Amino acid sequence: MTQHNLSNTISLLARTPAALNALLRDLPETWTFHNEGENTWSVFEVIGHLIHGERTDWMPRVTMIVQFGEAKTFEPFDMSGHIREIQGKSLGDLLDEFARLRSENLAQLRALNLQPEDLKRRGRHPALGEVTLSEHLATWAAHDLTHLHQISRVMAHQYREAVGPWSKYLGVLQCAGHSA
Amino acid sequence: MTQHNLSNTISLLARTPAALNALLRDLPETWTFHNEGENTWSVFEVIGHLIHGERTDWMPRVTMIVQFGEAKTFEPFDMSGHIREIQGKSLGDLLDEFARLRSENLAQLRALNLQPEDLKRRGRHPALGEVTLSEHLATWAAHDLTHLHQISRVMAHQYREAVGPWSKYLGVLQCAGHSA
Repeated sequence: MTQHNLSNTISLLARTPAALNALLRDLPETWTFHNEGENTWSVFEVIGHLIHGERTDWMPRVTMIVQFGEAKTFEPFDMSGHIREIQGKSLGDLLDEFARLRSENLAQLRALNLQPEDLKRRGRHPALGEVTLSEHLATWAAHDLTHLHQISRVMAHQYREAVGPWSKYLGVLQCAGHSA
Repeated sequence: MTQHNLSNTISLLARTPAALNALLRDLPETWTFHNEGENTWSVFEVIGHLIHGERTDWMPRVTMIVQFGEAKTFEPFDMSGHIREIQGKSLGDLLDEFARLRSENLAQLRALNLQPEDLKRRGRHPALGEVTLSEHLATWAAHDLTHLHQISRVMAHQYREAVGPWSKYLGVLQCAGHSA
């Protein structure tokens, strides 16, 4: 298990939009507009959620920690925020918007030129209480991965019956979702 | 849940190498050379496994079904076959090799010009018994997704401690692996 390393975090964050673009752009809607059943997200909705995080969660909370530390509690994240983001958009629009926002946010993060001692600074999460800037930034990267994990599972679900007897060999089809 | 559609399958299969390339090429080794513990695979090993499947499983079994139907049992797949594939290679080498083999295999698949009635043809799997060509092709696509699911999980595992209290919110960190 690795300690958090800001450079490794940024390397991953910088690649996610291109990876999703390569996987999803112009893919048939079977893969991208179907979900896993009632109250679950399609791939399209997941990208909307990633956009909403870029706009309201990741860099806004970095700024809040740097400016106010634990004195100010983060705004709670809106888990329905993607609904506004996807309204009237195509998947291609969302992929473009995600790439644009991520690129702007990483430029803003790099400009802060955070040092190891800055990463120890603390903020206040509305549910988790005290968290460090380091934990927040590591979570940004792990959050990309949790949704890549979800996207692969939502897509595989569309072929649950098509694979016939192979379903028992495919780990992704045993995954219960773990709520993301 | 969707019926198997060969065109949708090929659309996905064609995108996987570029998606993995965008995500993984030149990524710090923290992400790509660490695994989830004893007897688990790193991302590097997973790409070796995908290469081995291109070489020995997917199109060879398509050809066998088309030529021999149920009369000939598939060669069992070698789950250690990736060891030879990764020997002396860099991750960049593996990504190149996977893209090259996938592209050749899809050209070969398209050249077969399979019709709906062909997809009903049956082959014999050494453990599963009778399977259809349709199920085999759908599994090829779902197998890409099971390993994308695994890759995102193996990578997230490297930040299990770094995310601190957020770990309980990240679905990928609750995923037990389901054996792939």
